[in-house]
Amino acid sequence: MPKYQPPRGTRDFMPWEMVRRQYMFKVINKTFEKFGFAPLETPSFESWELLGAKGGGGEAIKDEIYYFKDKGGRGMGLRFDFTASLARVVASNPQLAKPFKRYQIGPVWRYDNPQAGRFREFWQADIDIAGSRSMAADAECIAALASCLKDLGFKDFVIRLNSRKLLNGLVEAAGINDKKAPSVFRSLDKLEKQGQHAVEKELKKSGATAKQIEKIMGMISISGQPKEAMPKARQATEGFMDAKQGLDDLEEIVELSKAYGTAGMITIDLSLVRGLDYYTGPIFEIKSISKKGSSVGNIAGGGRYDNLIELYGGQPTPATGGSLGVERIFEIMLEEGMFAGIPKEKTLVFVAAAMNTPAMKKFAIQTSQKLRQQGIATETDVMGRKLKKGLEYADSKGIPYMIIIGEKEIKSGKMTLKDLRSGEQRLRTLKSIVVAVRKYQKQ
Amino acid sequence: MPKYQPPRGTRDFMPWEMVRRQYMFKVINKTFEKFGFAPLETPSFESWELLGAKGGGGEAIKDEIYYFKDKGGRGMGLRFDFTASLARVVASNPQLAKPFKRYQIGPVWRYDNPQAGRFREFWQADIDIAGSRSMAADAECIAALASCLKDLGFKDFVIRLNSRKLLNGLVEAAGINDKKAPSVFRSLDKLEKQGQHAVEKELKKSGATAKQIEKIMGMISISGQPKEAMPKARQATEGFMDAKQGLDDLEEIVELSKAYGTAGMITIDLSLVRGLDYYTGPIFEIKSISKKGSSVGNIAGGGRYDNLIELYGGQPTPATGGSLGVERIFEIMLEEGMFAGIPKEKTLVFVAAAMNTPAMKKFAIQTSQKLRQQGIATETDVMGRKLKKGLEYADSKGIPYMIIIGEKEIKSGKMTLKDLRSGEQRLRTLKSIVVAVRKYQKQ
Repeated sequence: MPKYQPPRGTRDFMPWEMVRRQYMFKVINKTFEKFGFAPLETPSFESWELLGAKGGGGEAIKDEIYYFKDKGGRGMGLRFDFTASLARVVASNPQLAKPFKRYQIGPVWRYDNPQAGRFREFWQADIDIAGSRSMAADAECIAALASCLKDLGFKDFVIRLNSRKLLNGLVEAAGINDKKAPSVFRSLDKLEKQGQHAVEKELKKSGATAKQIEKIMGMISISGQPKEAMPKARQATEGFMDAKQGLDDLEEIVELSKAYGTAGMITIDLSLVRGLDYYTGPIFEIKSISKKGSSVGNIAGGGRYDNLIELYGGQPTPATGGSLGVERIFEIMLEEGMFAGIPKEKTLVFVAAAMNTPAMKKFAIQTSQKLRQQGIATETDVMGRKLKKGLEYADSKGIPYMIIIGEKEIKSGKMTLKDLRSGEQRLRTLKSIVVAVRKYQKQ
Repeated sequence: MPKYQPPRGTRDFMPWEMVRRQYMFKVINKTFEKFGFAPLETPSFESWELLGAKGGGGEAIKDEIYYFKDKGGRGMGLRFDFTASLARVVASNPQLAKPFKRYQIGPVWRYDNPQAGRFREFWQADIDIAGSRSMAADAECIAALASCLKDLGFKDFVIRLNSRKLLNGLVEAAGINDKKAPSVFRSLDKLEKQGQHAVEKELKKSGATAKQIEKIMGMISISGQPKEAMPKARQATEGFMDAKQGLDDLEEIVELSKAYGTAGMITIDLSLVRGLDYYTGPIFEIKSISKKGSSVGNIAGGGRYDNLIELYGGQPTPATGGSLGVERIFEIMLEEGMFAGIPKEKTLVFVAAAMNTPAMKKFAIQTSQKLRQQGIATETDVMGRKLKKGLEYADSKGIPYMIIIGEKEIKSGKMTLKDLRSGEQRLRTLKSIVVAVRKYQKQ
């Protein structure tokens, strides 16, 4: 049993995992930038005033985050998402050109009960567009997230789309007081996890009549391709302005998504609610479908929040965005073998001295330095070990090439290049070694 | 006055700063990997048992870090460096192949009094080698850090080198009880900041005689190029084994540094102590010299700590490493104009519709998607704006190219490419646009 361990719900990422995580983040990063999102970085903790603000996290969130007091007695919390900080930045920098399109990738912290696949420290990758009321912004966020998934190798996924405005309309159409909408949403949000019966029970408890419940449950069962689901939804909510506005928004997103090439993946799903209180317009979630055809859980989600920035003291600024569930994405990529071809070891060459003499050791260092100057990741002995031990080390790590330096090699300017996979070895000049290794690198 | 602000001592990094920070970290990352260091990531907070362990941070560190209790009442602290976590990982994973060469780049937190250039949340970039007693490991860490600085464009710097063993020998040679060595080191560490007088006063207070003080102050004044300083240091400490071992170590590092190309920057400086208690062998600091020839402060440092991993419950495992002061490095790079040529804006093309019609808007999105598929960072309107506003936005952000889509363009397959720097515009096919933009990208 080790003397010390990482805190509960946190993890160490060992080099062979990190290489793959870095690959995943690099692809995401690059894709976000292809869509014109620029990096923003905010502090790892924020004042409790911000995190617990009404309309943002709210008082209740204190139990779910890492809350602490700093030495000056000020309440602080580790960030539990990037949205609060983004809203703060936009609110306090009114001079920022709009649209303000930013991404942020990094760890966030929640005081969850750690269980399978859930951690207290986990990474997120967010994009948001502040300053645009247009559904073009929502369609672009969805397209950018879908594009990340494609670039990572995900082939099949479903984009579930709904709208808070439409949901408001549903509540209205069911004859429920619209002040009760937030509590109704919280109940509906439990449908997937707790099932229809539990949701109906909760709605009843909060004062809805059997008829109202029947009506609302009927409406949220509407789902399917936009072509089919939209007319049904229009019919069910006819005469309710909020619902109409919500449906018009969704129609516009679907239309623009055709140009983005994402329309075919969209399912309208009136039962989608999402947990957060601050959404005001379209909301979405992306589900991946495994090779075997089964859903493997939500891997992205987001929505529009037009009031949050004003709530945080800024000018009225509409905003929309979304987040990739990178921890789940990473797991799926591992399970489905999507890292095949990404080498776990980045060092390409190990330079070894045939004998443990100072002159040879120095020549090995000099040779390593020359390779590094050519951009080739190179190791050489730092243990005072003999050739055989160096070979074992290089082999166990999966380093593909070894250069062996001997007396002859120092004199002739040629050295032995050994391919550790095939065992082949040949005398070569350094220049031709560089060519051979670069060729391998490009494979 | 904004309603909410980042917590005291923390910062938001806006996109134009982030682009440069990302460039800096990318260069460092790549250089570390060229030397065969592999990424490791550890939690942002650790148990207080680990952080406050004797020989590591120690009880006293509680005042200098973000300490908090989790909801289970367990003491925790935000990490104040990466070394404690690395030692924990090595201690609890005895199966790791040695040498274990890892890097870690990320934020650390200290409850410092925020002042000019000092922050409570700041980034560090560390490399360490666990498992090697050989001075080849120390020489390699120094070379890798110096190589990062060179790759970032630093031309002139000094590597100050000393050894805790040699310092032990000095204390012995001055006739002071070696149990007092740690307290003597703490006093000497204040030399640069508080001056000779203050240090002598402190030494006197801790019981050293005037003669002892004179002797030790004389010895620590030895500094200079290895060729000159080493014989002086040998003479001053003759007959003391610890000092001899320390000097032999330094000689070996200097010798190996010749092969690394770093020997010319090394200054032996017997007054270098470094703050941490856990060092056991060679220690170093790197100072940058500005264009005007003045020192601009320490930008890297490190040393050997052969006992820490065992202290944390591991098998006896020697280790050595160092850290780049990336926040200071970033400031210097800004001050000295070292980011010239790194564009602040990554988007290369803005695709605009000549008229605000749905068909043209969609065509603009489709064109953007085609450019993105070619790896070109592209934006298009998400605001529902007209051409002129789009042009203003692209111009204000510094996006170099604009594509304008009109009726004619949709029909002919050619579109107007406008160079926003020169104002030139020409009808081109998308293919030839891709070629032109790629050419710009490579400049």
